[in-house]
Amino acid sequence: NICIHKRAFLCSLQIPCVTTAHRGQYRCQVFNLYHEAWTDVATVSIGPNSITDVSWVEVDRGQGILSTDKVALLIGNMNYQHHTLLSAPIADVHKLTNLLRQMDFKVVSLLDLNWQEMHSAVTEFLLLLDKGVYGLLYFAGHGYENYGNSFMVPIDAPASYTSEHCLCVQNILTRMQEKETGLNVFLLDMCRKRNLNDGAVVLPGLIKVTANIVFGYATCVDAEAYEVKTEEVSSGIFISFLKRRVCEDEKVTVMLDRVAEDMGRCEITRGRQALELRSNLSERRSLTDHIETSEHCSASYSVRNLQWAVAHVLPKSLYLQFDCGVKVQLGFAAEFSNVMVVYTRIMEKPKEIVSCSAQLTDFPEDVDIDLKKTNQESLLEAGGLLLINESLPSPEVPSLYTRIRSLQRLKAELTFTTCLHYTYSNMDEEVQERQQVTVGKPLVSKLKLHEPRLPCTSSSLLSCDSVNVAECSSLTEALASASLSTNTWSHHTQASIDPPTSSKSTNVPEETDSLELFTAPQPLVVSKSLPHSHVNDTKYKFRDIYNFHSL
Amino acid sequence: NICIHKRAFLCSLQIPCVTTAHRGQYRCQVFNLYHEAWTDVATVSIGPNSITDVSWVEVDRGQGILSTDKVALLIGNMNYQHHTLLSAPIADVHKLTNLLRQMDFKVVSLLDLNWQEMHSAVTEFLLLLDKGVYGLLYFAGHGYENYGNSFMVPIDAPASYTSEHCLCVQNILTRMQEKETGLNVFLLDMCRKRNLNDGAVVLPGLIKVTANIVFGYATCVDAEAYEVKTEEVSSGIFISFLKRRVCEDEKVTVMLDRVAEDMGRCEITRGRQALELRSNLSERRSLTDHIETSEHCSASYSVRNLQWAVAHVLPKSLYLQFDCGVKVQLGFAAEFSNVMVVYTRIMEKPKEIVSCSAQLTDFPEDVDIDLKKTNQESLLEAGGLLLINESLPSPEVPSLYTRIRSLQRLKAELTFTTCLHYTYSNMDEEVQERQQVTVGKPLVSKLKLHEPRLPCTSSSLLSCDSVNVAECSSLTEALASASLSTNTWSHHTQASIDPPTSSKSTNVPEETDSLELFTAPQPLVVSKSLPHSHVNDTKYKFRDIYNFHSL
Repeated sequence: NICIHKRAFLCSLQIPCVTTAHRGQYRCQVFNLYHEAWTDVATVSIGPNSITDVSWVEVDRGQGILSTDKVALLIGNMNYQHHTLLSAPIADVHKLTNLLRQMDFKVVSLLDLNWQEMHSAVTEFLLLLDKGVYGLLYFAGHGYENYGNSFMVPIDAPASYTSEHCLCVQNILTRMQEKETGLNVFLLDMCRKRNLNDGAVVLPGLIKVTANIVFGYATCVDAEAYEVKTEEVSSGIFISFLKRRVCEDEKVTVMLDRVAEDMGRCEITRGRQALELRSNLSERRSLTDHIETSEHCSASYSVRNLQWAVAHVLPKSLYLQFDCGVKVQLGFAAEFSNVMVVYTRIMEKPKEIVSCSAQLTDFPEDVDIDLKKTNQESLLEAGGLLLINESLPSPEVPSLYTRIRSLQRLKAELTFTTCLHYTYSNMDEEVQERQQVTVGKPLVSKLKLHEPRLPCTSSSLLSCDSVNVAECSSLTEALASASLSTNTWSHHTQASIDPPTSSKSTNVPEETDSLELFTAPQPLVVSKSLPHSHVNDTKYKFRDIYNFHSL
Repeated sequence: NICIHKRAFLCSLQIPCVTTAHRGQYRCQVFNLYHEAWTDVATVSIGPNSITDVSWVEVDRGQGILSTDKVALLIGNMNYQHHTLLSAPIADVHKLTNLLRQMDFKVVSLLDLNWQEMHSAVTEFLLLLDKGVYGLLYFAGHGYENYGNSFMVPIDAPASYTSEHCLCVQNILTRMQEKETGLNVFLLDMCRKRNLNDGAVVLPGLIKVTANIVFGYATCVDAEAYEVKTEEVSSGIFISFLKRRVCEDEKVTVMLDRVAEDMGRCEITRGRQALELRSNLSERRSLTDHIETSEHCSASYSVRNLQWAVAHVLPKSLYLQFDCGVKVQLGFAAEFSNVMVVYTRIMEKPKEIVSCSAQLTDFPEDVDIDLKKTNQESLLEAGGLLLINESLPSPEVPSLYTRIRSLQRLKAELTFTTCLHYTYSNMDEEVQERQQVTVGKPLVSKLKLHEPRLPCTSSSLLSCDSVNVAECSSLTEALASASLSTNTWSHHTQASIDPPTSSKSTNVPEETDSLELFTAPQPLVVSKSLPHSHVNDTKYKFRDIYNFHSL
């Protein structure tokens, strides 16, 4: 009775060689990242009755293969303290996040993590894994491979780093295997040159023969991975090719092998970079496999949904009423799990005020704000390359954008000041009015990734060990400190029926009943496709070869 | 104007989804290992004119992909001096040899090599490689993997062996890359457990990004590969599954990925052994790709043909005339490149002689003869599991079989004694008459694999450096010492029109004009399919779990 909906990320679906595997129910989804609409279901029957061929053969395409859940951790390190800065990971992580979300992955996407934060993020990722869950780890950044082990370099790695300063991928694999995952996928978008500084031989734990491990390396052993800088956006070679195929309804190995073929046709990386596939995956598992929602698994599935959702809670949109009569809206959107965009809009303005702008200032020192890029008129100017203008809230009302990065370092609730600058029609001098706003701990800041984990891998927020998945009541308690909100960009058009919750004191968003998440978990990562017309891979513009950076 | 002949190793060829890639010329080949016959060509046209579909699409299946040649080295080590003996490599190497020969590979198949011989064999293998040549290395035996490098263990490895006593596969890869090979395939049918005796970290040369390297590991990192002993023949798990797919006309990676799926359905190895595929192959290269025979390449192609053929020359069938009037035929067949079977048959016998048998004895000490298994009435009793009775020379004439192994150790020409035992009708006592026979250096013995190679990898027989491929005359000279014969099992039914060349002195087979090899190289490896009905993989008989040996 399960309806199989084939996903085709295309305007028209053409199936050249029709087999019985293609029969089922089809419907069209029209969606952006906030809303979706479905057409009615069309049932396609394919069978021996419809044709006169006596050599009718039933095709088994392994439709019985299901995942119990799909979870992905994406890390993109760019702003290295002691090493070449990279440009592409922001776009690459964002692109892959969108594509994995389309395939129902729970995605945690993080930019610019140091060693402690990477460790903690991996530990949180492992908590989301369980028997039969598909786990995917993507890393874009500096890396190396010594003696068969792959190491990911955090942004705080010293100039001469060794394995001590890095994370060993094979070590993460053994920890994933302890969770009895259904599929382990590693997409490593980094260099694999030897690190000559590091003579230590790391022996990770024994890897079990689970026959479900797939490595997609952006490049070969001893070789480098490249990114291409274009005028507006930089993109890694690997994701440029992966993005076209990653959603194909094929065994992961088949999909990656095709990406390898595509990359092989790329002239600029010939002899320098070639995708390496490494797999012992025996079953025909695909990233597009459906998630089993049997009753047996629903409790732990809900716990995972909750754990993941808690780290992706955005503050609710706020309305600040200033004494001068101006009403300002504060809106929030997630660009990554640790990057949030705040925008301000003037919603009401008395006639006697001629000019007026609401600017954010006085951010906590924990988080990372580029002061030169706060309160910009476009997201692009604010440093957010990824949300194009068309997706911004009603263009007829001007907004100012501020990007808050490194939310994982936020130790207390996020507090900042909204400073209203305005001029009366009969006065020349500008007047300022300030309101302090507190919006709780948004997105990944709740996970306290800056803190070391306990040795036995317990979450700072929720632990599978401590939470009895059969009893939801204990979860409610665990969530008491979590300010939940389902507000995203998508709500910017809603009527302002909420009473303004602003005050000059702390603003605490309403607490939502955590059980709501069990029934209707919301995809809280706001994201938008890149305007890829100008990133067409066959049309890379090379200013010169030095735009060609190795990761 | 090149005719593309699709090979289907099936009685009937069914193509479920016909595309333009299937058009071309088809013909049927009926063959055994010595002879082949072809049917007339049938031309199949597929095009838009034949159907009314306006959405006609031409399919490009990479038909432009050709190899300049295909060469395979297969090594099977079983009789270890200081380690567990293995049973399966003989059958596995033999099976794979046959399949690769069907795909036009030049195969060198060797059993039981020590370190020096493996080194020399690899060097000879490398001499057969050249730009665009497909190189394939298969190893069945003990092995290990330390720090990302794979090591093959020779039969003379000491009890506590280290990388010094073994051959590093990655090192061979870098040497293959120097030849600008078109495809590098490694099929490693061995364990990949760490060797705890070996703390040394081997750093092979830098591997280039040639995007044409494929590893098919029989098992995963840290895991073991198994063989299954059945009553008559032992077989490795890997080849049991590989043999069903290796001839598929698919990209090597696709083929191996399917083998991995098949192996995943094997209950007995679940959790112990799973095929690992490792590939950076970008082009859609397949083991079935055709060999380009353009004029440009023909000279070097011929040199390779010659080099390979020289190592696969069998002595001509001999007729020994004894004083008593008995005439004995000596026949020769290759089981592997270093294993030859000699059979004797009584062709003429005076009436007064009632019983008569011709037994071989006094073999050189270099070669390996199991004295208890010489002069057996069936090849099976002689230790040759692989040639079934139906393939032996005319069963109405009884033959005696002797297997000569380790031909690579033969330092002089092969000499042995044919001892005729006979009894006259009027006498009780058995009479003996002896003739010494010398048959030159058969098969691989010409390559002097027991000798260390020069540092700059020159062949003991032919070197690409010293041979001007445009001048065939120099090759003739090089071949002067090589006794060539195209006689194989297949000639056993020919009429005995040759004058008996026997004498009590040395018998030197006629020298064949070496140029003949340029125009019509003969496949000289005699081999025969296993009687696989009783080796059906789904019906393995396990006496107990201890029949399950790791390699």
